[in-house]
Amino acid sequence: MAKKKLNIAMIGYAFMGRAHSNGWRQAKHFMGPDVEPVLKVICGRTEDKVKAAAESLGWEEHATRWQDVIARDDIDIVDVSTPGDSHAEISIAAARAGKHVLCEKPLANSVAECHAMIDAVKKAGVVHMICHNYRRAPAVSLAKRLIDEGKLGRIFHYRGTYLQDWLVNPAVPRFWRLVKSEAGSGALGDILSHTLDLSHYLIGDVKEVCATMETFIKERTIPGTTQTGPVDVDDATMAMVRFGNGALGFLEGTRYANGRKNYNRFEINGSKGSIAFNLERMNELEVYEDNGPDSGWKNIMVTDPKHPYADKWWPAGHIIGYEHTFTHTFFDFLNAIAGGKAVIPNFEDGLKNQIVLEAIEKSANERSWVSIK
Amino acid sequence: MAKKKLNIAMIGYAFMGRAHSNGWRQAKHFMGPDVEPVLKVICGRTEDKVKAAAESLGWEEHATRWQDVIARDDIDIVDVSTPGDSHAEISIAAARAGKHVLCEKPLANSVAECHAMIDAVKKAGVVHMICHNYRRAPAVSLAKRLIDEGKLGRIFHYRGTYLQDWLVNPAVPRFWRLVKSEAGSGALGDILSHTLDLSHYLIGDVKEVCATMETFIKERTIPGTTQTGPVDVDDATMAMVRFGNGALGFLEGTRYANGRKNYNRFEINGSKGSIAFNLERMNELEVYEDNGPDSGWKNIMVTDPKHPYADKWWPAGHIIGYEHTFTHTFFDFLNAIAGGKAVIPNFEDGLKNQIVLEAIEKSANERSWVSIK
Amino acid sequence: MAKKKLNIAMIGYAFMGRAHSNGWRQAKHFMGPDVEPVLKVICGRTEDKVKAAAESLGWEEHATRWQDVIARDDIDIVDVSTPGDSHAEISIAAARAGKHVLCEKPLANSVAECHAMIDAVKKAGVVHMICHNYRRAPAVSLAKRLIDEGKLGRIFHYRGTYLQDWLVNPAVPRFWRLVKSEAGSGALGDILSHTLDLSHYLIGDVKEVCATMETFIKERTIPGTTQTGPVDVDDATMAMVRFGNGALGFLEGTRYANGRKNYNRFEINGSKGSIAFNLERMNELEVYEDNGPDSGWKNIMVTDPKHPYADKWWPAGHIIGYEHTFTHTFFDFLNAIAGGKAVIPNFEDGLKNQIVLEAIEKSANERSWVSIK
Amino acid sequence: MAKKKLNIAMIGYAFMGRAHSNGWRQAKHFMGPDVEPVLKVICGRTEDKVKAAAESLGWEEHATRWQDVIARDDIDIVDVSTPGDSHAEISIAAARAGKHVLCEKPLANSVAECHAMIDAVKKAGVVHMICHNYRRAPAVSLAKRLIDEGKLGRIFHYRGTYLQDWLVNPAVPRFWRLVKSEAGSGALGDILSHTLDLSHYLIGDVKEVCATMETFIKERTIPGTTQTGPVDVDDATMAMVRFGNGALGFLEGTRYANGRKNYNRFEINGSKGSIAFNLERMNELEVYEDNGPDSGWKNIMVTDPKHPYADKWWPAGHIIGYEHTFTHTFFDFLNAIAGGKAVIPNFEDGLKNQIVLEAIEKSANERSWVSIK
Repeated sequence: MAKKKLNIAMIGYAFMGRAHSNGWRQAKHFMGPDVEPVLKVICGRTEDKVKAAAESLGWEEHATRWQDVIARDDIDIVDVSTPGDSHAEISIAAARAGKHVLCEKPLANSVAECHAMIDAVKKAGVVHMICHNYRRAPAVSLAKRLIDEGKLGRIFHYRGTYLQDWLVNPAVPRFWRLVKSEAGSGALGDILSHTLDLSHYLIGDVKEVCATMETFIKERTIPGTTQTGPVDVDDATMAMVRFGNGALGFLEGTRYANGRKNYNRFEINGSKGSIAFNLERMNELEVYEDNGPDSGWKNIMVTDPKHPYADKWWPAGHIIGYEHTFTHTFFDFLNAIAGGKAVIPNFEDGLKNQIVLEAIEKSANERSWVSIK
Repeated sequence: MAKKKLNIAMIGYAFMGRAHSNGWRQAKHFMGPDVEPVLKVICGRTEDKVKAAAESLGWEEHATRWQDVIARDDIDIVDVSTPGDSHAEISIAAARAGKHVLCEKPLANSVAECHAMIDAVKKAGVVHMICHNYRRAPAVSLAKRLIDEGKLGRIFHYRGTYLQDWLVNPAVPRFWRLVKSEAGSGALGDILSHTLDLSHYLIGDVKEVCATMETFIKERTIPGTTQTGPVDVDDATMAMVRFGNGALGFLEGTRYANGRKNYNRFEINGSKGSIAFNLERMNELEVYEDNGPDSGWKNIMVTDPKHPYADKWWPAGHIIGYEHTFTHTFFDFLNAIAGGKAVIPNFEDGLKNQIVLEAIEKSANERSWVSIK
Repeated sequence: MAKKKLNIAMIGYAFMGRAHSNGWRQAKHFMGPDVEPVLKVICGRTEDKVKAAAESLGWEEHATRWQDVIARDDIDIVDVSTPGDSHAEISIAAARAGKHVLCEKPLANSVAECHAMIDAVKKAGVVHMICHNYRRAPAVSLAKRLIDEGKLGRIFHYRGTYLQDWLVNPAVPRFWRLVKSEAGSGALGDILSHTLDLSHYLIGDVKEVCATMETFIKERTIPGTTQTGPVDVDDATMAMVRFGNGALGFLEGTRYANGRKNYNRFEINGSKGSIAFNLERMNELEVYEDNGPDSGWKNIMVTDPKHPYADKWWPAGHIIGYEHTFTHTFFDFLNAIAGGKAVIPNFEDGLKNQIVLEAIEKSANERSWVSIK
Repeated sequence: MAKKKLNIAMIGYAFMGRAHSNGWRQAKHFMGPDVEPVLKVICGRTEDKVKAAAESLGWEEHATRWQDVIARDDIDIVDVSTPGDSHAEISIAAARAGKHVLCEKPLANSVAECHAMIDAVKKAGVVHMICHNYRRAPAVSLAKRLIDEGKLGRIFHYRGTYLQDWLVNPAVPRFWRLVKSEAGSGALGDILSHTLDLSHYLIGDVKEVCATMETFIKERTIPGTTQTGPVDVDDATMAMVRFGNGALGFLEGTRYANGRKNYNRFEINGSKGSIAFNLERMNELEVYEDNGPDSGWKNIMVTDPKHPYADKWWPAGHIIGYEHTFTHTFFDFLNAIAGGKAVIPNFEDGLKNQIVLEAIEKSANERSWVSIK
C-alpha cells in the first residue's frame, strides 16, 4: 500500500534552505518514513532567486509570498528556514492554518515570542519541532541512550565548547552576523546555543548561570564602504552553569579559536563513566567505563546497524556527514506526524534555550549569577 | 540557458545501486555538473524488486532486460552496477550502442575481458570510467595534489592496508562472497584492489609483487542448509611490492582484523615528507613536512572551500561521508562527457588493476616474485 | 677541572621526597650542571623512617631536626619538601642561614607568609625557587618559546583544565587532603594551582576572576573509624579569568573526571595560531599555524636534540616521563646558583599564585568577580 | 636485614652504557630488587674516556682490559654492552668465570656464536639474559598478559613496523652503522630485530619468512674524507611471516619513514579482540574487545599500580619513559639471580632471533620463502 504523501512548503532558501531541502529528500530515499514527504513549494521574496533555488534544490514550485503559501489547502507542513526575526510570525500563522511546523533555531528572538508560538501550536494541535539537528548525530543519540541507561551514573561535570575560527581574520567585514540589531547576538546565539541545547538534552535543566562576553575586534569594515563600524555582538562567550541535578557545567562559544573549524565538543563525567564527543569527528563517541585498572577511553565508531539511524545508511565503518543530522531530524518529525505523536526538541525546548541564553547575556552585563526560573 | 540533459540507465540495483543512485542525484543537486543527469531507468531481473527499487531510489522507469535498455535511443549513459561477471558483456554492448559507460569495480573477472572492453570503448569513442571512488575522497585528491607538487620528494615507501572484521564471526555463512566461482576472490578483489588502485594513483606502476594468501576459517555453513562447505577464497592477502620508481610497497587486505571496520589506510614516506590517510576518518589528511626540529604530523581537515570538491558542500569543518565519494566521481564523469574529454580512472586503469591482482594470486600460488609486464 | 660540589639538605621524605631525590641525582648524572649536587642529608621527624629513606633514596646521612640541619656549615642548599604549613618557617630559617632555597608548591598557606619568605630570601641574597615543575616539561618550555617568538600573535583564549578521577570512588576515606585545616583547599590548591601557574608563565598576569567550587561527596569515612565526617574542601573548582593582556581564560581543577588520570591540559588560541598540551602525553606539543587551507594541528614530538632539555637525554623519539620535570627544574636551579643568577619560578611567582588562589576562593564564596591587585 | 650486594662489571660505555648504568641505579632506588646491585667497575679500552664515564655514570672504578675485570673474584655480574662482534668472546669468558651475564642485543653476529654462548652459560649454570628491553615497557607486558589470559582468542595477524627517519638526510655520512663489515646489517639487525623479538614474545615461533631489502641511497660520504663510498647495508627491510600457530605476520624496519622518529609499533588481531602499541606513546595500550555494537578501541593508560612494574613508580597518569624499560629488565634479572631462577629473554631467545634474522637475509637474497628449522 502506498504511503500517504505530505506536501511541504519551505519558507527561506539560503544556507539552511539547502540543508533542509537535502534533508527532506534524503529522508525519503534512505530512511523510508511512515509518510512520504513531497518537496512542494519553496518560498522567498526575490522571484528569480527563489525560482533558481526551486530548480537546483528540487522543489516542484516556487512562490514569493509566504502568506499565500500558508493559505494553500494542499500544504501539510511548513518548514520555517528564514532568519530568526520572522520565525514567530510565520510559525504562528502556519499553526493557525493547521500546518505542522518545523522551525529552524533560534525559535525566536525573544522569550515573549516563544510563548506566543507555543500557544499557537498547542491550540492548533499540530506537531511542532525546532531544528537542533546535532541531537541526531548518531553518536549524540547514542550518548543519550547510554546516559538514560545509567551507564554514567550520577553526573558531575558537563564541559561544552563550540569553537570556530573564522573571525580571527580582521579582514572579515562587519556583515549582518556582527550587527546586534540583525543577529541578536554573536557566538552566543549562533553556536553556544547548540552547546546549551545539547546540555539540556543530555544533562537536564539549568538552574543558574554566570557568564562573561568579549568582543576582541571592536571595529570592522562596513561592507560596501571603506569605513569601519563597531561590532556590537560577542566574539566569545563563556558561562559557568549549575544544573538542577547538581552537576557543574561550563559552556563556551567562540569564533576566535584558531585551528578549530567546527569543534562542537562536549565531555560529560559521571560516577560510573564518562563520554566525549566532537562534531568534527561526528561518527565517533568516546566512552570511558570505570571497570578497574584496564579501563580506558574507548572510541566507538557509531556506524553499526544497531546504532541510532545507522541501519538506514551504509555498512559499519562507512561514515556519514554533517547534512545527515538534518535528515534524521526530519525523519523523526515525519514519523511523529504519521503517528500523531509529539517529538523533541519542540517549541518548548526552544523556549527553554532562549530563556537561558537571555540569562547568560544578563549575567555578563551585570557581572553576577542569574537564576533560571 | 538550460543545461543539456543526459539520460542514465543503471543496470543493477543492490548495494551499489543504492550508492550510485544517490551519487547521480546529489551530483545534480549539490555540484552542478556541466550536463544534467536524469535518473531515467533502472534495470534488474526480478520485476517486483526492481520496481520497488525504482520507487525508493528515485528512477523514472524500471526494466528487466538490460539488452532492451541499451537499445533505447534516449539513453546516453550506462551505469554498470551488476556483479563483476557480467561487466564485460554489458559494457561492451553499451559501448557498441554508443553509450558512455561507467562501470563498477572490478572492471571484469579476467584480463582478457578487460582488453575486450577497452577495445569496445575505444572503437566507439565513448567516455569510460571505472568506479574506484576512493580516489575522490577530498583528502585522497589532496594527497595526489601534494605529491604532484613535489611536496613529498622522492617516494620511498607505500604502506596500504585495508582492514575489516566482519568474517571474524564463524557464524557468518558461506554466502556468495566466500565462493570463488562467484566472487572471483576474497579480500583480494574486494578490498585489496582498492588499496592497489590508490597505489597506482599516488605512486605509479607496480613492477613486481610477492604475495601470500590465507583462509583462516576453512568451512562455513552453506546458506539454507545445516551442512558446511569449503571456503575457497582468501580471508587475507598480503603482498610486498616494488614500484617502477624504486619505491617499496606493502599491500594488505583482510576481513579478520577485529575492531577495524573500514580501515582503508595508507602511509607514504618520501624524502621531503610523508602522508597518511584512513577512510574511517576520511575528512582528514595527515601530512608531515620535514622542516627541522619543530616538524610534526599535521592533521589537515580537508573541508576548506579551496580543497578538492569541498566548495560544493558545507563550510569548513562540516564533514561529509562515504557516499560523497561516488557523487564526486560521477560529477567528474559528467563533466568529462560535457567537455568531450577523458577521465581517470578509466578502463585502462581497471585493466592495470586486474593485471596486478592476477599477479598477486599467481605469486601466492607459486610462492615466488612475479613481474608485471 | 673538577666542578664545585654543593651539599643539599632535603627536609621531608614522602612522595615529593622521592621525586626530589631522583631529580637531584639524575640532574648530576644526565645533565651535568655547572655545580655538582651532593645528596648530603635527608631530614624527617621519625628516625627509623627517615633512616630507611636515606638508604633507599640515596642520601649520605639522615637527621630528625631540621633546625640542626640548617645550622650546619656544610649545607649549601635546602630543599623544602614538607607539607605546605611548614614551608614558611623552614624557608625563612634556611635563608637566614645563607642557604639557597628550593621550596615545593604551594609556597605557603597564606599571602602573608609568602611576603615574609620573599623578604627573607631577598635580604639573604640567596637563590630561591618554587617547584612548579610542569613548566619544564620540554613541550611546555617549547610552548613558551613559540609564544615569546610571536608565533601565536595576540592571545585570545587560555583554556586550562587539570582533571583527575581518584575521588569518584566514595570508599576513599576522609584523609588529610580532604580536611581544610590540614590541606588548605582541595582541587584548588592541589591541581588548579598548576594550571594557574602555567597561565602565569605562558599568558601573563591575571586581572580578575570569577569562580565556583563544589563538594560532590560531602561525607566520607574518617580513617580508623566507622564514622563519617564532613569533607570541607572543594572536589572541583572552576574559574573564569580575564588576563591583563585582554585574553579570556578558563581554569578548572577536579578529581571527579572519570577516566582522566592526570589530565593537565591547556589550549591557547591566538591571532596567528594555537597550542595545546596534555601532561598525559607530555612528550608532544600540538601546534596550529594559520597558513591557509592546508593548515592543520601539528603534533610535534618534543624529543629533538634542539628542543629544551632534550639533548641531555636520548635520541629523537625516545620519550621521557613525569620525574624528568623535576630533574630539569633542579638543573636550572643549580646553574642559577653557579652563575649567581635568578631563576623562575621563584618565590615571587609563588606569591602571585597564592594571591590568585585566594581570590578564586573569595569569588566562589561571594559569588562575584574579584579583582587582583 | 640488609640485602645481599652483587657487584656489577659493565664492559662498554657508549650509548648503551649510559642507558645500562641508569638502569642498574634506578632499579636499586625505585624498584627494590631482592639483591642490591653495586655499580662496581666500568671497562673500556680508552683510559681517559672510561675514567670520565665512570665519574659521570656513577661507577666506583674503571678498567681498560675486560679480561682483568672478569678475572676478579669480587665481580658477580657482567653486563656486556660492547658492539655485537665481541659479545660472544666476552660472554663466554664471563660465564666460564662463573659470572651471571646480561648481554645487549644482538646476542652475537652469527648463529654459530650464539650456540657457543648458550653452551657456556648452561655449563656454568649462571643466569643469562639478552637485553630486549621493549618487552618490559609496561604496556607490552600488559599485552602479553592479556594474550596469555586468552583475551584475544586465536591470533590471525601480527603487524610489526619499526619506523625511523634519520637516514632520509643524504648528508648523514657513511659511519659504521652503514658498513656491513662492522654493523652486520642495517635496519634489519638494528630495529627490525626488536619487532621480531616482540613477535616471538607475543605470538610464538616463526615458521617461515619471505623478505626483501633495499638500500635507497647507495653512496654516502666517507667520514673524514670528501669521497663517497658504497652503503652495503639495508636501509629498509620488509618480511612476510608465517607463525607456527597459523598467524600471518608482517615485519618492517626502515630508517626512511619521514616523520616517524621511534615508531616501534605493532598491531595484533585475534578472534576475540585486538591490541596495538606504539613505542612513541609507550604508556598507552590500545585494546579492542569484541562485545557487540558498542565495542571500540580502548586506550588504556598503563600507569595503574596494578599494571606491570607501575607500582614502583608514580601514581596513575604519571608517565615513564624509554630508559625505564632497561630498569625493569635489570630488576627482573637481579630477582632471577636472587631466586636462582631463569628469566626471559635469555640467550636461547637471542639465538632464535638470530636464526630468523639470517633467514630473512637469505630470503631477500634468494627472492624466495625460507623455512625456519
